[in-house]
Amino acid sequence: MEINLTLKDVYAARERMADAVHETGFFSSATFSALSGCKMYLKCENMQKTGSFKVRGAYNKIAKLCKTQKLSAVVAASAGNHAQGVAYAAAAHGIPSVIVMPRGTPIAKISATAGYGAQTELFGEYYDDACAHAMQIAQEKKAKFIHPFDDEDIIAGQATLAVEMLNAKPDLDTIIVPAGGGGLLAGVAFAAKQIKPSVKVYGVQAEKADAIKQSFNAKKLIAHKDIFTIADGIAVKKPGALTLAYILKYADGIFTVSDDEIAETIILLLERGKMAVEPAGAASLALAVSKKLDLAGKKAACILSGGNIDVGFVHKIIEKGLISRGRQMKLSVVLPDKPGALEGFAGVMGRNNANIISVQYDRSSAELRLNETILHIAFEAAGHEHGKQVIKNLQKAGFVLAKG
Amino acid sequence: MEINLTLKDVYAARERMADAVHETGFFSSATFSALSGCKMYLKCENMQKTGSFKVRGAYNKIAKLCKTQKLSAVVAASAGNHAQGVAYAAAAHGIPSVIVMPRGTPIAKISATAGYGAQTELFGEYYDDACAHAMQIAQEKKAKFIHPFDDEDIIAGQATLAVEMLNAKPDLDTIIVPAGGGGLLAGVAFAAKQIKPSVKVYGVQAEKADAIKQSFNAKKLIAHKDIFTIADGIAVKKPGALTLAYILKYADGIFTVSDDEIAETIILLLERGKMAVEPAGAASLALAVSKKLDLAGKKAACILSGGNIDVGFVHKIIEKGLISRGRQMKLSVVLPDKPGALEGFAGVMGRNNANIISVQYDRSSAELRLNETILHIAFEAAGHEHGKQVIKNLQKAGFVLAKG
Repeated sequence: MEINLTLKDVYAARERMADAVHETGFFSSATFSALSGCKMYLKCENMQKTGSFKVRGAYNKIAKLCKTQKLSAVVAASAGNHAQGVAYAAAAHGIPSVIVMPRGTPIAKISATAGYGAQTELFGEYYDDACAHAMQIAQEKKAKFIHPFDDEDIIAGQATLAVEMLNAKPDLDTIIVPAGGGGLLAGVAFAAKQIKPSVKVYGVQAEKADAIKQSFNAKKLIAHKDIFTIADGIAVKKPGALTLAYILKYADGIFTVSDDEIAETIILLLERGKMAVEPAGAASLALAVSKKLDLAGKKAACILSGGNIDVGFVHKIIEKGLISRGRQMKLSVVLPDKPGALEGFAGVMGRNNANIISVQYDRSSAELRLNETILHIAFEAAGHEHGKQVIKNLQKAGFVLAKG
Repeated sequence: MEINLTLKDVYAARERMADAVHETGFFSSATFSALSGCKMYLKCENMQKTGSFKVRGAYNKIAKLCKTQKLSAVVAASAGNHAQGVAYAAAAHGIPSVIVMPRGTPIAKISATAGYGAQTELFGEYYDDACAHAMQIAQEKKAKFIHPFDDEDIIAGQATLAVEMLNAKPDLDTIIVPAGGGGLLAGVAFAAKQIKPSVKVYGVQAEKADAIKQSFNAKKLIAHKDIFTIADGIAVKKPGALTLAYILKYADGIFTVSDDEIAETIILLLERGKMAVEPAGAASLALAVSKKLDLAGKKAACILSGGNIDVGFVHKIIEKGLISRGRQMKLSVVLPDKPGALEGFAGVMGRNNANIISVQYDRSSAELRLNETILHIAFEAAGHEHGKQVIKNLQKAGFVLAKG
């Protein structure tokens, strides 16, 4: 594929969106510097309008189209951030938008998109079906189909992020970018290298959705049949041919992180960064914290590309984190099956500051003697050490632990 | 009490802390403007160093002391943000700090405080005991005791927030401030009125910890014996005599919000603001969203005073929110007590997109006939409407619902 963008196109994109898109915060973080062993800056696109960087590309595309033609409508297919970006950008230009979403799309995302004035349509089970339907609608309506990444106006829009970061911190030497379809990585790598050729730009993918990494290594487009990751924002089976051309020319490497690494980083960002970041958005920092990439002595920036994370999902991630940190623990104990048995046990737990959150009686284990019951307990503790102490003190008080 | 501060003291405080304390973000928010019916700006002290505004006062106090005397150490009593503020400010001046915390203080807060280089001591059950002990240590060590709020250098430090906000948005006409001991409210109200006398400054307290509201209305200091709120940062039994003098002179009113209003605002800030804010910090915005204060046509700022919220607590707040929004629901159904019974039920649930998260069999209800069992089910739904639809479709399929 031919590369046509120049840095001038990126500056023009930046000018087009100046009044419509936030120049988001770009902060140094002592905590994340320590954790990643370098001077670390966070680019907060989670705080961007519509909750992600996607609005940059969509706005640039639609603004450019509006200059040269009278648009009747724009059409896009997306279950996520591209949907909201297109809906917002279209509304800002007074143009109707139709967004086709796969049937399983969470209601919150549908209503957020509709909230920006889009007409939403549910079609098909997967993105591919929705996309085909959206293209058909575009043809019928003589409306413009807006691709989520494989389009140089979209790439130029996302590239404005590199301009903002290098303007704010000219001594930046490393930029880490989440990559799914590759629009953000293509744009940032391209513009960063134009502005400051010595900057290293790395892409991050999810371990089980790493088509760009494989394509980068093979130097040709490789698509996946099956992908699996919590990072829906970068769960893309087939990267763009155009984005891949940019990435092959301008990116310095592609890494992967696991879903567990992403989840742990989301909790860290919440606890220490005081920010909600979606899984795709946290992938960049997850890589930095993982130390898979040597950042010693560097001045690095991680793009936190979006913040559209469902609170129900935050709830699950925190729960998993609480368990892995020993803040929620389980134990099973054998009790005599008679009145008052629970009181003695609960007394030890209480005096040890362990907060019981669930109790289940089990009288049907094969190993139990008559007149015994097993109690399965979940409790809150301060951490693994505290949990061990609780168990030790239960044993000291004569309680016999059973297998979970 | 005499009021001695001048605006010059506040500017001097601002200069002292210029390199040590963030000028935090101050953003307009379309979402929260719509929810509170005015142009709403959020001052993000949750992103401040040490996670709250408290570092401003502590830094100003210690910097001033250092100018006039050789400090051997500073001592403070706090289970929360003041502890971290003092520890950080002392370390920044190369001075040892001793922080006395009540025994129940969460381990995370103890280690955060120790992480800033403080020597932490656990003493007593309540803040009052810890405070008395801290004062005693200060006397023994000939060290300086740093009060959390009732001190004009502390008040001047917190007042720098008014300068930042009115510098950034000179047309601001309303400022809403969380209030516990009253240091932040005293400082902000004082400085705001000096800079722009027409600005209205309101304090917000928790419904069941409203000593400043009562004192403000009675025009004399009223202390509470019992207080109860999730907003630990503003859970103060007795406001300062000095802070009250400032508040009586410069504040325009004190309002309260309930713990439920605070919790709902924390979720909103997470979902829509992409930020973690602690309960005390969310109280200001909770008031704005509650519409108890008429903000129509105003340009208002809410100070989000801190972000030190435990993830375990976030977990509980989200859970409550999911339940109240119908995202987690319960039902009980009567099943024949025989093989295969669960399959039919689970099939209907699955086809209706209801995700079962817990199942409990109950064979011991008095109303059951022989060969029947009750199933208690918790499931995830898209909301109340979806939940109703699930129940309707279960009934259509012949299932009989039981009382929870």
